[in-house]
Amino acid sequence: MKRYERLAGDITELIRTGILNPGQRIPSVRQASANYGVSASTVFRAYYLLENKGLIRAKPKSGYIVCSQTNHHVPTSARTHSKLESTSVDVSQLVFSVLGSVKDKSIIPFGSAFPSPALFPMQRLAKSIAKATRLMDLSTVVSDLPLGNPNLLKQIALRYAIAGVKAPVEEIVVTSGAMEALNLCLQAVTRPGDVVLIESPAFYASLQVVELLQLQAVEISVDAETGIDLLELTKALEKHPVKACWMMSNFQNPVGVTSSDEKKRELVDLLHKHQVPLIEDDVYNELYFAKEPPKPAKAYDRDGLVMHCCSFSKCLAPGYRVGWVSGGRYAKKIEQLKLMTTISASIPSQAAIADYLEFAGFDRHLRKLRYNLEIQQNKMRAAIDDFFPNQTRVSRPEGGYFLWLELPEKVDSLAFFDLALQKGVSIAPGPIFSANRGFRNYVRLNYGYPWGPNSEAAMEKLGKIACSF
Amino acid sequence: MKRYERLAGDITELIRTGILNPGQRIPSVRQASANYGVSASTVFRAYYLLENKGLIRAKPKSGYIVCSQTNHHVPTSARTHSKLESTSVDVSQLVFSVLGSVKDKSIIPFGSAFPSPALFPMQRLAKSIAKATRLMDLSTVVSDLPLGNPNLLKQIALRYAIAGVKAPVEEIVVTSGAMEALNLCLQAVTRPGDVVLIESPAFYASLQVVELLQLQAVEISVDAETGIDLLELTKALEKHPVKACWMMSNFQNPVGVTSSDEKKRELVDLLHKHQVPLIEDDVYNELYFAKEPPKPAKAYDRDGLVMHCCSFSKCLAPGYRVGWVSGGRYAKKIEQLKLMTTISASIPSQAAIADYLEFAGFDRHLRKLRYNLEIQQNKMRAAIDDFFPNQTRVSRPEGGYFLWLELPEKVDSLAFFDLALQKGVSIAPGPIFSANRGFRNYVRLNYGYPWGPNSEAAMEKLGKIACSF
Repeated sequence: MKRYERLAGDITELIRTGILNPGQRIPSVRQASANYGVSASTVFRAYYLLENKGLIRAKPKSGYIVCSQTNHHVPTSARTHSKLESTSVDVSQLVFSVLGSVKDKSIIPFGSAFPSPALFPMQRLAKSIAKATRLMDLSTVVSDLPLGNPNLLKQIALRYAIAGVKAPVEEIVVTSGAMEALNLCLQAVTRPGDVVLIESPAFYASLQVVELLQLQAVEISVDAETGIDLLELTKALEKHPVKACWMMSNFQNPVGVTSSDEKKRELVDLLHKHQVPLIEDDVYNELYFAKEPPKPAKAYDRDGLVMHCCSFSKCLAPGYRVGWVSGGRYAKKIEQLKLMTTISASIPSQAAIADYLEFAGFDRHLRKLRYNLEIQQNKMRAAIDDFFPNQTRVSRPEGGYFLWLELPEKVDSLAFFDLALQKGVSIAPGPIFSANRGFRNYVRLNYGYPWGPNSEAAMEKLGKIACSF
Repeated sequence: MKRYERLAGDITELIRTGILNPGQRIPSVRQASANYGVSASTVFRAYYLLENKGLIRAKPKSGYIVCSQTNHHVPTSARTHSKLESTSVDVSQLVFSVLGSVKDKSIIPFGSAFPSPALFPMQRLAKSIAKATRLMDLSTVVSDLPLGNPNLLKQIALRYAIAGVKAPVEEIVVTSGAMEALNLCLQAVTRPGDVVLIESPAFYASLQVVELLQLQAVEISVDAETGIDLLELTKALEKHPVKACWMMSNFQNPVGVTSSDEKKRELVDLLHKHQVPLIEDDVYNELYFAKEPPKPAKAYDRDGLVMHCCSFSKCLAPGYRVGWVSGGRYAKKIEQLKLMTTISASIPSQAAIADYLEFAGFDRHLRKLRYNLEIQQNKMRAAIDDFFPNQTRVSRPEGGYFLWLELPEKVDSLAFFDLALQKGVSIAPGPIFSANRGFRNYVRLNYGYPWGPNSEAAMEKLGKIACSF
């Protein structure tokens, strides 16, 4: 570890342990140089690193101050919204009117569901697709249908094996993105009118799919600090003839929370007891900031009840539309459903990703991506600190690329959305994440774009709007 | 026109007009050389051409004889199977057990649904995908979602315009193959329990999708010479609250028949009168042998009731999984459904096809493809002539790559399927094309593979089995 990194680490410790408090000035460069016995340039480099990580920021005429890490608490849970009643879902049109309005490239895409393509090795992937398509065995064009490209299946199985998750290669089905995987899983285990459990708040597309398949949804609260409410879940399982449970246990969209391993085990045990299949949406699993990856609930699956859905869209190859599901006992059924709908994911896309995984240093890319996302999160949190109302509570996810903000109660996030769009900034308003259009004073912001002066200016605009209610 | 081509044309005329009859010897090379006043080598070249086209064949010790074009009549229609009752469909498991058994590469794939990848410009496409992916505008990776790559949409719209079909670019939705398009169309206009009209016999996947969406199907007979039975259709429209009609008006799978323009117009008018949307499956539209392409029913659409579903999988780029629908008044709804399921077709695949269409000579490729398919059809028909029971009736489609055979009544095509598979040859048995498992003595054969000694030997095996019942 270099000298400036050690210094930065020391100061980080001071901040984390509360010895240096938010808003407090940190030692000037001259002071620090003297105190720590290092050169001024070492101090500069350390402070620059801390600034990049969003831990400190320059304040005009005050030197550096500690960014607010703690005065913005995590949002409150959604407990008030859940009555454990099953409801038919009608959120689609709201979602479409929101999404449709943010396609303009000139809009700052804080409301987007996608991270910036600039974070991904698109040129290296182009090489992989060129090579893989040129060398493609003609017969595979037909025979790779429908399970998936054998090399890709092997690579995916290998990653499961390394992670210690039991996911046999014959239970893996490659799909046209995770969204298709989630759809197929839900179709595999439900019929119209069936009751399914979803999270509250939940990824809006899960609400749309539930609506599309004419299922009844029971919303289970997601606590911002601990994740899904197992007590509510237990009650729902006892009250309703539940056919499936659709959850994100890592970096939940939009809340950002990751359940503990213990909780994941309990969740799987509980569902096992009721023999209810779990559709696990784990599309952000590679975007963790800690040293170790979070485990999927699938890791605790004993008898193939967990369908683990993932994708390369968020961690490697946006637009290639390649995802997969490790389908457990439902793999065969999922495969058959795929054969009836899209038949197969794009063969060149699959071959390209298989080539990249094998030869191009996927893990190196992932480390860089995680590093960038963490920096961007800190930047955005610092900007919220600077510009948003004091009562704002903001999540602190340990991965992914979304922040979930609870704004003062008087803020109407749908009005916020309209006002922000007029200023050239998109946001994702809370009500699109709930079947009953709750979360009126919540918004989700995407920090998956490289940070720059435009981002800062956009955050300032949002802050002004939030303060204007 | 070269001399040998003119001679071949003359002999073709003699065959077509019945002056030279099937089984009849044609003039020896020496005779023809003398009669027509051309060199022996010109005669050889002409005969070689005719042989390639499957019009004549060499018979040991007899010189050349005319292949049978007429003694195998088209199969009878399926009138006996249709009672105009709506039925829930349960054909999937039968289809899967049939399809699953033909994945082995060593099997001669006459039962396959796909043409041979060897017929397609896979290497030229690899160049297009390499170029298009390298030059891809990063922002399109996200913003091309979900309607489709703008260049590709433009190219598709252009082809509609040239064909004189009114299909505005804003009503075109690119999909992950035609199968997805057909699914989305059906979902756009039906709910579980609704009644839809399908053909009998029908493409088995349409039966599977109807089953998947829990729809009630009314089967309408397809006549082998004239296509869909409009009288039955009228009665069904009067009897049932029909929500959609799913038909192939060109090179119908499996029968091969193409409806006349007049009939297409009547079909559209009839559906218009009842305001029933038509889902037109037109995936073989580019595979015509005549000089002019067949018109789609969409050409007669007045008010956006026809959803025209197509694909590049059968005419250019198998495995790329790019299809589309010109969705008429349902385009918006279809787009939204796509956003809930697969979001977008593979962006590199789309960009590659757009590049190919613009720069690589798509029409030149299509001419070659059509020529090859017609030759292969003639070869397969000649082999049926040689090896199959005399009472066999075989279709004579003017495009596509399927023959539909009516075998003697005592032949059970499911048993035929098993016996053929034991001999290393796959076929598609009749019952998979019908909700009520009719067509027991029918089989569909795929001539979409380059013809060779193996094909001939496989046909001989099939013929022996057919004769053994």
